[in-house]
Formats: sequence, structure tokens, C-alpha cells
Amino acid sequence: MPPYKDLSPKNIDLKVPGFKASGISCGIKKTGKKDLALLLSDVPANTAGVFTTNRVKAAPVVLDIRRLRKGVSRGVIVNSGNANACTGRRGYRDTERMASAVENALGSGKGSILVCSTGVIGVPLPVEKVEKGVPALVKNLSYDGLPQAAEAIMTTDAFAKTAVSKAGINGKTVTVAGFAKGAGMICPNMATMLAFIATDAEIGNSALKRALTSAVDLTFNSIVVDNDTSTNDTVLAFANGLSGCGEIKADSPAFKIFSGLLNEVSLKLAHMVVRDGEGATRFIEINLTGAASAKDARSAARSIAESFLVKTAFFGGDPNWGRILAALGRAGIRMKEDRVDISFNGVPVVKGGLDTGNETRAAKAIKASDVSVEVRLNAGRSSAKVWTTDLSYDYVRINSAYRT
Amino acid sequence: MPPYKDLSPKNIDLKVPGFKASGISCGIKKTGKKDLALLLSDVPANTAGVFTTNRVKAAPVVLDIRRLRKGVSRGVIVNSGNANACTGRRGYRDTERMASAVENALGSGKGSILVCSTGVIGVPLPVEKVEKGVPALVKNLSYDGLPQAAEAIMTTDAFAKTAVSKAGINGKTVTVAGFAKGAGMICPNMATMLAFIATDAEIGNSALKRALTSAVDLTFNSIVVDNDTSTNDTVLAFANGLSGCGEIKADSPAFKIFSGLLNEVSLKLAHMVVRDGEGATRFIEINLTGAASAKDARSAARSIAESFLVKTAFFGGDPNWGRILAALGRAGIRMKEDRVDISFNGVPVVKGGLDTGNETRAAKAIKASDVSVEVRLNAGRSSAKVWTTDLSYDYVRINSAYRT
Repeated sequence: MPPYKDLSPKNIDLKVPGFKASGISCGIKKTGKKDLALLLSDVPANTAGVFTTNRVKAAPVVLDIRRLRKGVSRGVIVNSGNANACTGRRGYRDTERMASAVENALGSGKGSILVCSTGVIGVPLPVEKVEKGVPALVKNLSYDGLPQAAEAIMTTDAFAKTAVSKAGINGKTVTVAGFAKGAGMICPNMATMLAFIATDAEIGNSALKRALTSAVDLTFNSIVVDNDTSTNDTVLAFANGLSGCGEIKADSPAFKIFSGLLNEVSLKLAHMVVRDGEGATRFIEINLTGAASAKDARSAARSIAESFLVKTAFFGGDPNWGRILAALGRAGIRMKEDRVDISFNGVPVVKGGLDTGNETRAAKAIKASDVSVEVRLNAGRSSAKVWTTDLSYDYVRINSAYRT
Repeated sequence: MPPYKDLSPKNIDLKVPGFKASGISCGIKKTGKKDLALLLSDVPANTAGVFTTNRVKAAPVVLDIRRLRKGVSRGVIVNSGNANACTGRRGYRDTERMASAVENALGSGKGSILVCSTGVIGVPLPVEKVEKGVPALVKNLSYDGLPQAAEAIMTTDAFAKTAVSKAGINGKTVTVAGFAKGAGMICPNMATMLAFIATDAEIGNSALKRALTSAVDLTFNSIVVDNDTSTNDTVLAFANGLSGCGEIKADSPAFKIFSGLLNEVSLKLAHMVVRDGEGATRFIEINLTGAASAKDARSAARSIAESFLVKTAFFGGDPNWGRILAALGRAGIRMKEDRVDISFNGVPVVKGGLDTGNETRAAKAIKASDVSVEVRLNAGRSSAKVWTTDLSYDYVRINSAYRT
């Protein structure tokens, strides 16, 4: 079963004032599909980034971290089909060449363009193809180009992922729009998650960084597909200020509204990444409440979401609460087994650590494509939500396929 | 492909002087297969145990931890088919009744018998069946009974797991024999690993505990099947002293010999557990060298062994070193990407963090049923070995099957 339909908004206006985008094919992908994207602000934009915590970082990640020290950029060029990871010094030079190609074409100045890559690792980037593609990429830039850019960053994604949200701030409409690619790990060597968010909000880069870090924590960092952290994971947010909403200061009421938009767009994109998870047949929300601390809540929810056994049980439609209790037990959290309550889509299966006898009803409830696992520890007041998928034959098929 | 043949020694003398064992069917398993085992020393034996670190501990684990405070016992009764986990107070009373049934039949005194259980969790133990089975269990005790006991503790194991090793200590032959059950998680709810080791060595219980802890660390705690830690995992060692080898003091030359035997038996059993891993088609050794600390070595090796992506790649016969480098990168260890060397069954695939161009040879090399992954960090002098399996369709099939 192809699990999830395309969830990106259709016929919805993804335009953000002052941002152009484009997506073309430059020949990195043998299939001829789009593989080169550009997101560009008309004016310098305050820019914040959150990057992979993997010690092995792809060349573009290293470049972006350096360039973001000044917190401003014009945009980002992204290629799919090659991750430019584990490629040594040559890889870094190739990343610089990608950026320079756009900077020279636009006359935007050295250091004004960021770079992301996703695809196979350990193989040198065919940077000449990128350089040859840049004129067409720039020529195709359009205020309506975001869907093309979203398409050009896909690897094994089943659908392009876009989202948009708007609100009024100080009498002006502020737009936040984003696009992402998911945990597609087949032809490349691992999951790479990339997301790009453009907004016309006026916000300084330290406030932007703060809002982005918080949004990523509750969204992109709260999804689990297969526990792996890629060498390329990157989320970038660009704020060009063209809404004229007045500067959004950290902790102001306007900051809360803006953070809400950023969270909403990030959450939509993150959920699409999960729903498009390799081989996924179910979308699973772990709703963990009553933990003694926020850290405990997060650890407990992740321990459940990361368990092979929990994920295979959901694939099989087995309301196997023992595996959830065991996952809690090894999470290193404060808990008492005899205080734990668990329900599946509202059907209580464990009360005070013991079976409720509702297995038949629970088995029926989890046949749904969306499953909510509610776990109450009754040990405190902290909570966390984590989203994941089941683990299916298709996951194994996709990820065991020999690279060709 | 059923991956691994029965690796237990055949026609090999598993007898340990002064230890009897038996295995019978008492009706817990609907199939009528053996489900009740007893290992018994003729005389009180110094006893050491290592137990699951899961906060959710099955009733027999709680009982054994309490009973082992005095460090001596006569043996252990084990049932398969029901884990007696997540069963509340009733579960604990049922565990006490299991022990009492044997103690009463033997007149061995309250507290002299330990208990282990493995099987489905969250379902009350049918303790009356155990009590009815104990007379036959005791009647069948024999110095040749270890293979029957090994058979009776199986759940989804494809074969019974036994091992034996002998050495001369102070002119006397000392025997160490053991049996184990593996990470069979189907009908029950999670992996339970049980192992029992009997020896006629003369060794005090603190020295025995020390030797056992060290052996477990390098063997049973160095295998990864699916990252899950069960509520029931237990390793018990019984030393009855009947060899007359003289007391083995910690750190003496005799202690080293004894520890060597214990390691050898534990390693054989642990490897059998991995080879019998659910759905396993390959046995994979991660040989990690050149780490900055022992902790780094262990973390790095485990990170590789626990990666879904590494395990699916091996199933597919894909020499996908990028996934290994990424697993190292997220292990939280000291490393420099450009110093890492990796080879598969002796074929170098990464040198100084870069591709060696040996992919075709490497792909051929890892088609073997045993794969050695050699990773040299070149960051220090510490090393670690961890053993694991690939991740196959059969793993998903077995673990997604609805419990019936």
C-alpha cells in the first residue's frame, strides 16, 4: 500500500513577498528529474540555521555554519542526487564553487549564498553540471517558483512538501512559507532532512535563531523515522523584512505570533516527512504526559518511537502494550510501572501498569492509518509529543536495495 | 533462508560435577513443547547474577535480586511461554509459589531456589500448571539433563544453545557449562535473553560476581539484535566447588584461568543468540579499534550495530560505508572523519575518510554469511567488539505477526 497521499497544499498561494525560487534539472540525476533549486530574497535577509549534530558533516553544512556567523544571506542553492559528504577537501571546494556560480550570476557578492546537498555520499559532486545549470536556474527564478524548488530537492520522497501560514502583525500581513525533503535514504546512504523557510517578517537574526531553534525542537527534532542522523540535515530560515510589520523583538506579543506561524509551518512539513517515511503504512503520534521533567517526557516518548519492536507491532496491527512498557523501562526516566496508563486511539489498554482486557477493541482501533498512543506516567506534569511511523517490509526493501 | 544451523555442540559432554538438570512440558505452551526447566546443584552453590537494566522488571527478576543478596542458592527453575512481567502483585506471589514448589519437593529450604520466566508479558502466569509439573521435573533430574533444560527454556529460538569449556586449575579439572535462550520476541512481547552457567570451580561469590560481570560485559552485553532491553534478561552463574581445585581468589592466576573459561562459554552462547537472531541472514562482527577511550570504542561499535540503515544494507549485500561513517558521527565520540579507515572482510573501503574505489570487491566480500566490519578510528588505543545481525524481511514478519 502506498501509505500517504500527497499532503502539500494544492492551488494555495505559497508566495512570500520578496522571495523568488526556481527548480531545474542540471543532469546530476540520471533520470533527468529536477535536481537543482534556488531560493532567493530580493534583499539581504536575516538568516538562521539548525544543522545536523552528526560529527561527520557534509561539506555544505561546514560552509553554511561558517557563513551564518554574520547571520545574513540572500538565499540558498540546493542540489539533489549527490550529498557532497565524505568527499574531503575537494568536496569543500565544490561547495564553494556552487555558491560562487550563483553569486557571480547575480552579482550578489561573495558569501551571500548558502548551499545544501542531498543524495549519494562518498562520491565527488559533479560540480561542472551545477555550474552549467546555474544560468537556467537563475533565469527561471519566479515569485511563483517555490513548488518547483520543492520538487528539485526531492530524493526518494513520494511527493514535494510545502506549507504556508499567515497572520497579521501590527496591521501587516506576515507570511511564512516553507518546503522540505524527507527521510529518503535509498539511493543515497542515509536519511537527509532539509527544510527551507522564507518569511517577510522583520526580525533580527538572534530573535529569528531563537524562534527557529524552538520550532525545530518541537517539530523536526520530534520526529523519528529510523533513529539515524544524517551528515547533511539542515533547516534554514530567511527573513527579509519586506512585510513592513515593524521589528519583532524576542518575547514580544508579535514574537509569539511569529513563532506560532513558524511552528505551524515546521510542524506541517515535519508531519509530511513522517507520512512519507520509507515504507510507512501508519502515522503514529506518541503523546507522553505526566512525566517528572521535560527531559524525561522527551526521552520516554523517543524510546517508544525508536523501538523496532513497537514499530513492527504497529505494522502488524498488534496492540502490543508490553513493548511500550518495556521501552519506557529502558528510557532511564523516573517512573513507577504500577502508575502507568496507556491507551491506543482512546481505547485504554493499560491501567496502573496492568492489562485492561481491551485487546480486541484496541486491535480494531489501531487498524487506522493514524494511531495516537497516549501514555500517562502519573509521575509529574511534563509532556512531549513525538511522531513516527511503523516499520514495514517496504522499509527493509527500500533500504536493502543495492545502490545502482 | 533459515540462516544458521544448530551450533550447539553435539555428542559433547555437558556434565558438570554435582549439577543435575531436567526439562519437561507442564502445559504452559499450547504446542505441548517443553516449557519447564530445573538446574540444581547437589550442594549449596555460590551464585552470582546479572539482570536487565530495564526499570520495568518482571516478577522473577525482582525475586532473584532479593534472594541473591546472600549469594548462595541451590539452583533455578525456569518456565518458558509466559514472562510473568507486568503482572503486578499477583505476579510476584506466583514467582514465590514457583520457587516454593521446588523447595518443598526437595526439602531444600525457603529461599534456596531462584526463578526465571520468559514468554508473553502482561498475562498472569498459570502457576498451577507449574506446581503440577514440579514432581515430574524433579523426578527427571539427571546429571545428563542439561540439554533437556536448554530445550525447555526456548521460545522462538530455532535451536537449543549450550556450551562447555574445561581447564586444569591446581591439578584438578574445572568445568564450566552453560545454556541460554535468545532474543526471540515473537509470541512474547520482547526479547528476553536468559543464560545459566554451572561450574564446579571453588570460588567465593564476590569473586564469582566479578568474573561474571566482566564476562557478561564482553559477551552478552556486546551483542545487538534489535536495541531492545527486556524486562526479564538474566544471566546466573552457580559455582558448587566440587572440583576440589582450591579456592580461586580474585586476581590470582587461577582466577584468570577461570575467567577465561567463563568468557569462552559466555561468548559461545552469546554468538549463538546472535546467529539465531530473528530473521538474521548474516552474522556481523564490528571490530572497532583506535578509539580514544574504552567508552568511545564501545559507543562507536554499538552505534554501528544499532543502525537500521547499516543492518538493512548488510541484508541487501550493499557495502554501504557511508552509513557506517554516519553512525560513527552520531555516536558522540572523539574522532576525525579524515582519519577513519574501514574494511569489510579485509577489503578496504574507506581510507582516511575517503572512498577507496573497492566497491565491487567489497560487495563480493560481504555476500558471505559472516561479515567482519573493521573500523579504525586512529584516535587512540582502545578497542571493542560488538556482534549483530542484518535486518531482513523476516525480522519484520516475525515481529509484526499478531499474537495468537
